[in-house]
Amino acid sequence: MSRITVLGTGSWGTILGNMLSENGHEVHLWGNNPKVIDEINNIHTNEHYLKKFHINPTLKADHDLKIALNGSDAVLFVVPTNAIRVVAEQIKPYLDQAENKPILIHAAKGIELKTKLRISQVIESILPVAEYGEVVVISGPSHAEDVARKDLTALTVASRDISHAQTVQQIFKNNYFRLYTNDDVVGVEVGAALKNVIAIGAGIVHGLGYGDNTKAALMTRGLAEITRLGVKLGADPLTFSGLSGVGDLIVTCTSSNSRNWRAGNDLGRGKKLDDILENIGQVVEGVTTAKSVHFEAQELGVSVPITDTIYEILYENKDLKQGIIDLMNRDSKPEFI
Amino acid sequence: MSRITVLGTGSWGTILGNMLSENGHEVHLWGNNPKVIDEINNIHTNEHYLKKFHINPTLKADHDLKIALNGSDAVLFVVPTNAIRVVAEQIKPYLDQAENKPILIHAAKGIELKTKLRISQVIESILPVAEYGEVVVISGPSHAEDVARKDLTALTVASRDISHAQTVQQIFKNNYFRLYTNDDVVGVEVGAALKNVIAIGAGIVHGLGYGDNTKAALMTRGLAEITRLGVKLGADPLTFSGLSGVGDLIVTCTSSNSRNWRAGNDLGRGKKLDDILENIGQVVEGVTTAKSVHFEAQELGVSVPITDTIYEILYENKDLKQGIIDLMNRDSKPEFI
Repeated sequence: MSRITVLGTGSWGTILGNMLSENGHEVHLWGNNPKVIDEINNIHTNEHYLKKFHINPTLKADHDLKIALNGSDAVLFVVPTNAIRVVAEQIKPYLDQAENKPILIHAAKGIELKTKLRISQVIESILPVAEYGEVVVISGPSHAEDVARKDLTALTVASRDISHAQTVQQIFKNNYFRLYTNDDVVGVEVGAALKNVIAIGAGIVHGLGYGDNTKAALMTRGLAEITRLGVKLGADPLTFSGLSGVGDLIVTCTSSNSRNWRAGNDLGRGKKLDDILENIGQVVEGVTTAKSVHFEAQELGVSVPITDTIYEILYENKDLKQGIIDLMNRDSKPEFI
Repeated sequence: MSRITVLGTGSWGTILGNMLSENGHEVHLWGNNPKVIDEINNIHTNEHYLKKFHINPTLKADHDLKIALNGSDAVLFVVPTNAIRVVAEQIKPYLDQAENKPILIHAAKGIELKTKLRISQVIESILPVAEYGEVVVISGPSHAEDVARKDLTALTVASRDISHAQTVQQIFKNNYFRLYTNDDVVGVEVGAALKNVIAIGAGIVHGLGYGDNTKAALMTRGLAEITRLGVKLGADPLTFSGLSGVGDLIVTCTSSNSRNWRAGNDLGRGKKLDDILENIGQVVEGVTTAKSVHFEAQELGVSVPITDTIYEILYENKDLKQGIIDLMNRDSKPEFI
């Protein structure tokens, strides 16, 4: 049994915290909204993020970081990408005082907009590897709603320090939730971030009225584009054939539970981006990631036509239908070049 | 403009024949059911296979092979796997007399049960490469229903003779249907055949009540298993990341248009295989392919746990739910080994 701090009271943070507490760990779920903290502690629900879900009463929510972090063996970041840096800075003074440094884990999916850093790089820039060891990433096909009802779920757990990954594997393991180790952090993080952009594209295709053939073609080329960028950044191409690559891409592009897919679908049906985001009421990571990756790929000289098209649709008012037609009719005759 | 013979009046044969005739070619669609031939020629429908679809009146259906094959530039096989050999033998005497041998193309997805041969190998065993040149394969994410409504569709066209593949690419090309060339016939045919087995598994998972996480995990491991067998047979692993690999897998596992998925879904909901197949009323290729591949993989020493499980469910009355749980809980700790 471990003492685990989960940072973030969104749907994924709440579900993972709840599952870890059901696994028998002492879990402290930290969030910055006192109302949500009170709701979790007193009514054992988190209605805004998880409709009609009953939270294990042994899960303790904290608004006070000092209490949440006190004596933790592991700290799990489940906050939006744009909050990773500020939360890492907030927890640093408490962790610096800790005698035994906790393992740092994250389950976030994005690329920091300003710096183009992956999540583990952001964390390690504030909580250095020399003191905390290598960060561990959890990623793969995992809708919170499905884990909530104990659907069989298989994910990747990645760290350059495989012993860290194995420790995390044991902490999470139960009869419906399995983690498979991998040491390719770059590949796992790139796959996690970029699939959200492709999912917006898959949603647009659906919203415009195209069917399964078009969606599958877009996803296939999306995977190729994710792999190209990942390999350029040092990833192992094999990672993109795994749970955190094609697995997560499939679940995000084919399920209406996916916020990114829903945002794309609403765009395809003619709604405005601002209204869509307000209506979803949670972070849609792919919208920001499209921007980061569009510019990063340009700098690196990597061709990412789908991401470029999504970027132009989101930020430059490109016509959606023309964008999709252009993508499908690109003149690349051999399949692999 | 070419003269093209399409062999097979199922949904895919009819749709491809119809599209080729709309592309401006002279198309002869051959089938062995005189009633269907008459329906296509006189009423311009094929109701059993394509509900409410209007067939281009210039498409000519023939029951007489001699007429259907006379002067053809290309012959496209779109019959079930277990009919490929007999149809190839039937057409051989007519083609042997032809001065200019037609290009041989197929769009079938399976492995011949008795011989474990791929479709192109069966065809080439009867219509030899020395006389006819290399067979061309068309495969990828392509529900007939979606092509019928001119959904944007992108497929792979493969031949060891890339000039043959390029000729076929030009014959099929229009503003919604694109073929991308590849020379890896083994990889394309193996992907095409095996994805049907994984689709039965995805259907079972859905029918049993599991959600998107479980399905995505199954598909991801299914892709790994297809790739393992394909590489052992000489395929390029890259092919499985393409349209005929992961692309076709996605469309077959996530669409209720897929007969293989529907058969699995019905099994998961407790129906009997014989009733399911009778009710679908068309060939469900994955049922036979599961058997071919189960034994072939055993001979080759390749691990195909999903195919083995589907085989045991279909032919040995294995309990479905236990089969899926066993698959998901296999003790392979690192993701790639």
